[in-house]
Amino acid sequence: MVVLPRTVAWENGAVVMIDQRLLPNELRLVRMEDYLEVGDAIRDMCVRGAPAIGAAAAYGMALAARQAVSRGECDLLPSLEQAARELRATRPTAVNLFWAIERLLAVARGVQAEGSHAAAAAMLEEAERIAEDDVAANRRLGHFGAALLPERCTVITHCNAGHLATVAYGTALGVVRAAREQGKDIHVLVDETRPRLQGASLTAWELMQEGISCTLIADNAAGYFLWRGGIDAVVFGADRIAGNGDVANKVGTYKLALAAAANGVPVYCAAPLSTVDLTISDGRAIPIEERAAEEVLYVGCQKIGPEGIAVANPAFDVTPAVYLSAIITEAGVLRAPYEESLRQAVEGQRR
Amino acid sequence: MVVLPRTVAWENGAVVMIDQRLLPNELRLVRMEDYLEVGDAIRDMCVRGAPAIGAAAAYGMALAARQAVSRGECDLLPSLEQAARELRATRPTAVNLFWAIERLLAVARGVQAEGSHAAAAAMLEEAERIAEDDVAANRRLGHFGAALLPERCTVITHCNAGHLATVAYGTALGVVRAAREQGKDIHVLVDETRPRLQGASLTAWELMQEGISCTLIADNAAGYFLWRGGIDAVVFGADRIAGNGDVANKVGTYKLALAAAANGVPVYCAAPLSTVDLTISDGRAIPIEERAAEEVLYVGCQKIGPEGIAVANPAFDVTPAVYLSAIITEAGVLRAPYEESLRQAVEGQRR
Repeated sequence: MVVLPRTVAWENGAVVMIDQRLLPNELRLVRMEDYLEVGDAIRDMCVRGAPAIGAAAAYGMALAARQAVSRGECDLLPSLEQAARELRATRPTAVNLFWAIERLLAVARGVQAEGSHAAAAAMLEEAERIAEDDVAANRRLGHFGAALLPERCTVITHCNAGHLATVAYGTALGVVRAAREQGKDIHVLVDETRPRLQGASLTAWELMQEGISCTLIADNAAGYFLWRGGIDAVVFGADRIAGNGDVANKVGTYKLALAAAANGVPVYCAAPLSTVDLTISDGRAIPIEERAAEEVLYVGCQKIGPEGIAVANPAFDVTPAVYLSAIITEAGVLRAPYEESLRQAVEGQRR
Repeated sequence: MVVLPRTVAWENGAVVMIDQRLLPNELRLVRMEDYLEVGDAIRDMCVRGAPAIGAAAAYGMALAARQAVSRGECDLLPSLEQAARELRATRPTAVNLFWAIERLLAVARGVQAEGSHAAAAAMLEEAERIAEDDVAANRRLGHFGAALLPERCTVITHCNAGHLATVAYGTALGVVRAAREQGKDIHVLVDETRPRLQGASLTAWELMQEGISCTLIADNAAGYFLWRGGIDAVVFGADRIAGNGDVANKVGTYKLALAAAANGVPVYCAAPLSTVDLTISDGRAIPIEERAAEEVLYVGCQKIGPEGIAVANPAFDVTPAVYLSAIITEAGVLRAPYEESLRQAVEGQRR
């Protein structure tokens, strides 16, 4: 069994990430010594997946602090606020980005009186804590989620909510990993996940690295398999969960959830509480990123449509909570009404 | 406005088709003087779309008759039955294939006593009638369907149920064309339609040729747009309609219909009665073609998944009749219960 390097980590004063745009063909680590490179990496999807974006932003803030210290700045806050603005502007939907930046800024504000070196050190410590907490949360939620699956099961997953979407272990694929660790015989149908094909290039690759049985399908085929029968669950991650349980996740999740619900197949969203945004009460208020036409119009260098065609490319959609069977978190398996269960879980974590 | 050549036609003793595998890059007509080439063209999707496949098979049978005559065969039936077996084996789901072959065989059996030349001539006449009837049926159903749309509307379509899926004019896109002819302001969101991308390469191209406003989307995005609002209808074709109204159509249709139904958006299946199969009472009995893994794994020369990944590739799915608002046919707009309305329409046609 291959042990994957962490998706994002801190190493000798730099942020190191797996460049996910090169997978499944090449596993390459890239090293960043400027927080602006971290911003570019988030924007260009060198790193993606809400929890991984959160960790990357946290390390990016720690890097910004280190850079400010090396420039001899005594008060880091102006530079950090500038860095926060830059990093916040990279992608709008995954709430972990904003959450991580706020956590790092709060640490900086808290310790700034102790001097810039102490502040930078505390920020790095906080970023490392976010990363460690992510791995621990994924292991816990994986354990809770796996218990929901039968001994022998086939699940469908969408996009990549795996090791590569987090610091390590994964959310939806954390459930899959934990099921295997519990001795369950699990098979995964992997939605290819157009337009960027994270299922084909990341999820299928990641599962094959660990010898987890999987089959790649066009997203369109998931409905057929759910209708035909033999699917035990649908499990996916989240980019932002509203207070009422509505889930923003990679575009296509909504139709997948509808098809599962229409066929009585349980629909599980697996996500750490860092993805819950209680400031948004309803999924309709979650900002949905619109990405470049080229993502749809080209697959690699292959152009798929006619010259001059207009393209719309929303990167996420919202699955209303009514279609979810449960939200699997590190605090346990949450059920409807999500207004209550999410609030209790988030408050429990703060205590 | 460009006038497209017929998708499939008879010309000086040969079958001539648009090679749809070359679109949207090149509009090339291919000429076939052997019915086996017609079989290959159906199998390899040089021609696709249930009504176009039906017409191609009819012309293929006429070509087989002509070939048998030129070999000096007095009794055409053994050669024709062989040709029928070969053509039937090309693709399993679109019922028009089997329907057209049976019609041509019936003509051959009916006139064989008049000699082989007369039989071959009668078969060509029957094939031409099938082609003409298809165009006329599409115009009629287009007219009926367009009346269902508001003056200003946006519709989503899946795959290609257009000119290129029929002899001319199209079924779902026949409705779109008729709406424009009725002076309606219509915009089409075009599902790219993975894995073979008929939406991107054929539907988008076909609409742009005629200056019909359209936007290409990843199939996954259709759910988002239906949820967000502003979509007036979903309209698609059919490869086979069971007696209860269940519709086999290009894989992905089912999830699209679910997303429309979940948001109160009308779901219209537009198809000629030649696509109705009253011998099958329920969509569960419709054979679903499984196609090659390469269709999913490659987009042009671009490989999208890891080496050695298993792939499943069902080419169609079944949309249960309960999710349809209507089936639009040349006999009018049929409503549930479809057992009755389909039977009446088919019987009315026979009279």
